[in-house]
Parts: sequence; structure tokens; C-alpha cells
Amino acid sequence: MSELLYEGKAKKMFSTDDPNVLRVEYKNDATAFNGKKKAVFQGKGRLNNAICTKIFHVLQENNLPTHFIDKISETEQLVKAVSIVPIEVVIRNVVAGSLAKRFGLDEGVSLGRTIIEFYYKSDELGDPMINDDHALALKIATEEDLAEIRRQALKVNDVLQSLFSEAGILLVDFKLEFGKLKSNGALVLADEISPDSCRLWDKETHEKLDKDVFRRNIADLPETYEKLLSRLEAVK
Amino acid sequence: MSELLYEGKAKKMFSTDDPNVLRVEYKNDATAFNGKKKAVFQGKGRLNNAICTKIFHVLQENNLPTHFIDKISETEQLVKAVSIVPIEVVIRNVVAGSLAKRFGLDEGVSLGRTIIEFYYKSDELGDPMINDDHALALKIATEEDLAEIRRQALKVNDVLQSLFSEAGILLVDFKLEFGKLKSNGALVLADEISPDSCRLWDKETHEKLDKDVFRRNIADLPETYEKLLSRLEAVK
Ligand SMILES: Nc1ncnc2c1ncn2[C@@H]1O[C@H](COP(=O)(O)OP(=O)(O)OP(=O)(O)O)[C@@H](O)[C@H]1O
Ligand SMILES: Nc1ncnc2c1ncn2[C@@H]1O[C@H](COP(=O)(O)OP(=O)(O)OP(=O)(O)O)[C@@H](O)[C@H]1O
Ligand SMILES: [Mg+2]
Ligand SMILES: [Mg+2]
Repeated sequence: MSELLYEGKAKKMFSTDDPNVLRVEYKNDATAFNGKKKAVFQGKGRLNNAICTKIFHVLQENNLPTHFIDKISETEQLVKAVSIVPIEVVIRNVVAGSLAKRFGLDEGVSLGRTIIEFYYKSDELGDPMINDDHALALKIATEEDLAEIRRQALKVNDVLQSLFSEAGILLVDFKLEFGKLKSNGALVLADEISPDSCRLWDKETHEKLDKDVFRRNIADLPETYEKLLSRLEAVK
Repeated sequence: MSELLYEGKAKKMFSTDDPNVLRVEYKNDATAFNGKKKAVFQGKGRLNNAICTKIFHVLQENNLPTHFIDKISETEQLVKAVSIVPIEVVIRNVVAGSLAKRFGLDEGVSLGRTIIEFYYKSDELGDPMINDDHALALKIATEEDLAEIRRQALKVNDVLQSLFSEAGILLVDFKLEFGKLKSNGALVLADEISPDSCRLWDKETHEKLDKDVFRRNIADLPETYEKLLSRLEAVK
């Protein structure tokens, strides 16, 4: 018995026979600007599934708790079911995107220190940026949740900066989601880490290897993601 | 020798013979929506000077460090010169204004806990909301500054909630600015605390006793500020 629990913009989430396990199917859809720009790319689901799987393997080797169980087909993974903490956690090492715009900074400038931003996951509200006081007063998360999310996010950043660096790639910024395991309530990294949710630039040329090629009509999305995958697969 | 150092929307700042002391003149101008709505009200400068003076006196009685020295005329104060920390510190006890809008909350709902928000003081950037990481990475303030600002802001909130409560008034939210004394670098409360920078509601009727009467065309501004002043003067 497998039931479609949720269809998002990039993935479908299905139940499995085990209530603590979900099946994720990566779709070929690409969206940008809150769904205002849309396209379908043959191979995107396969590529994101492969890239995300590689990344979760490396995180697990580094003892980071994640929802990831296994890749089970070209476009599918099994993951542990969590209750998602409704915060999009953005980690920034280099100025890009909305940070550049909000503060009038030049894209590509390295930040002296990592910036973590929290956005309240709410489509109706347009994912507003929040601070810790908002999260606590609006009961979006507890003080312990926020501390643990920050701790894990910084560790993910360290591990991924190394991984991408070995592939000749600069980890500019990325978005994480965390959740609490249905089984025992432990906070773990959930959702996906893929070129849809990261900014990844070639270290030397600053060539973009992420969804910005689609957002900004810079290059072919599947070709770009394929390039990223081969560079990641060449590591180790 | 007295020189106009800065003319803002609500005040003029003059030098004095003492480089560590400034003279503030409260203007009759009212502005809202980043200066898009403007008007001049006879008596506004006098009223804000009187209200702000009363409030700074009470803060000083409660051992809070401020820039305030003395009221020297109907519309003027002497204050200690500071270098302003470019952060607008907003303290919220009850949902109103932009918080209601951003989170789809009803105005007037009491927050379970006080929310402090930081906005980067920058007219060109439109005073964007920031978190601690932004303040640190963009060198807007140090970790010690932020901790001390939070500590003092919460204490100001406690003292002012009591003061206004005795006047039958609910302190909904307010904006503070802090600065470092030119003389010795100590962090102190600066700028103004007035109905221009607070939301103040009658406890029983929720009648507004602040600049929202101008922003929203609810009532006459000088009459409203006069009412607030007499209620504050009746305290103690
Ligand atoms: N292990 C998990 N258990 C339960 N839900 C998860 C898990 N991992 C991710 N999710 C959620 O499943 C959905 C994945 O779908 P997708 O990424 O396509 O959503 P989306 O269109 O980005 O929309 P949104 O994230 O706003 O819900 C997300 O809502 C995500 O938060
Ligand atoms: N003790 C002080 N020493 C030096 N500057 C001060 C002091 N107190 C307040 N200020 C600054 O003086 C100015 C007061 O003018 P006013 O409040 O009219 O400015 P404004 O129009 O609100 O503009 P802005 O606050 O964006 O500069 C503000 O810039 C404020 O930060
Ligand atoms: Mg998603
Ligand atoms: Mg001002």
C-alpha cells in the first residue's frame, strides 16, 4: 500500500508499509520565483536524486543525523518520516541573491563569517524572514530546536564546503529543512540538498552549477546538473 | 557657538560649546510611511519634548543609562553626544502594524513573550530587518553590543510598561536607538521615546494615543499627544 501524501513543486511524498518511512519521488519540474516561472526538464528528477543521494551519503559518513535511508530507483529515495519544523534555514558563505539585493552588496563577495537566516515556511505569507523571538513567540520552534538547528546547519556547512571544494566548487549558499523523526522525535536534517536548493559556483570561473542557470536563463539545466553530478562523483 | 549638525524628519541636532553635548530641537513636522505622508502640527515639538523628557526622567530614576541631560526650553533638550549604533530596535508586547501584516495576525493579540526586532538603519536600503548574523557579518554591531542592547531594551520595556500602565495605557510596541558616548564609549539609550516612536493604547478602550492617529487619519495629532502628556503627568 502506497499513497500520495503530498505533491510539492519538486517532489512527491508517498507512504510505505512502514509508517516511519516515506518514499520520495523527484519530479522533472523546475520552478522559480515562488512558482511564477515553471518548466519541465527530462532527467532533472534523476539528476537531483543522484546528487542528493551522494550528498546525504557524505553527511552520514560524517555522523550527521539525516532522514535519508536509501536510493531505490533512478528517481526515488526512501526517507524516515519526520514532522517538518516549518523553517527554511538558509546558510550563506558568499554574498548572492536576496542578500545582495537587501543590503546593496556585490554578488561574490566572501562573507567574513557564515550567516544563517530563518524563513517561516508559509506559502500564504510568502516565507517571511524571522528571528529567534518570532520563532519562539509564534511557537514555530523551541529554543532547543533553534540551537540544535544552528549546530547541525553549521556542521552540514563544514562538511559540504569540503566536499564541494574537492570538486572545485564554491558553496555560496544553500537551504536546509529539519524535522523531528516520527519514530523518536530526534531532530534530523530532512528534505533535499540539490542544485535546486544550493548556489554552487566553479571555484575558478564562477560558472554557475545550480538552479540560477534556469532562474536567470544562463544555461541548459540538465546539462548543468549533469556536469555537477560528474564532478561530485569524481570526488573520492 | 552652535552649529546645525543634522536635520532629521522630527528633530534638529546642534553642537554646543562642549563637544560631548548636543542640543536637540523637536520640530513640528510629522511624517509617516518613510516620509511619504507629511504634515506640520503646531505644538507637536513642545509635546514630544515634554513627553520624552518625562520618560527619560523615569528611565534615569530606574538607573538606565541614557543620553538625556536636561530639558532646556519648550522644544529643546541637551543630550550627551553619541555615535549611534545603526540599528532600530523594535520591542513588541502586543501584535500591531508590520508584525500583524507579515504574519497574518490580528492587531491587539497579546504576545506570549516580548519580541525584539533589529532593523538596519539605512534610508537607501529601506531599513531592512536583520538578524544577529547579519549585524556581525556586515559589521553593523559586535556580539557584545547586541547582548547589551537586548539587555537594556528589555529593561526599558519593563520600566515603561509599568509607567504607562499607571497611566492606564498599554505599551503595544516601540522603537529605540542606542549609541556609544563620545566621552567614554559606554552604550546608552539615545534618540527619543515619544508617541512618534511608540504604539500606546488606552488599556480599556484601545483608543490610540500615538502617531497611528496621523498615519491612519483617526484623530487630531496635537489633541492626542496632549491627552497622553496629561495622563503621564498625572502619574506619581
Ligand atoms: N522526511 C520527510 N518527512 C516528511 N516530510 C518531508 C520529509 N522531507 C521533506 N518533507 C516535506 O515534503 C515536501 C517535499 O516536497 P517539495 O520539496 O516538492 O515541496 P515544495 O514545493 O518545496 O513545497 P513546500 O516545501 O513549501 O511544502 C516539503 O513540504 C518538505 O518539507
Ligand atoms: N545623543 C545623540 N547623539 C548623536 N546623534 C543622535 C543622538 N540621539 C539621536 N541621534 C540621531 O539624531 C537624529 C535625530 O533626528 P531625527 O529623529 O529627526 O532623524 P530621522 O529623520 O528619524 O532620521 P534617521 O533616524 O534615519 O537619521 C537621528 O539620526 C538619530 O539617530
Ligand atoms: Mg521543497
Ligand atoms: Mg528619528
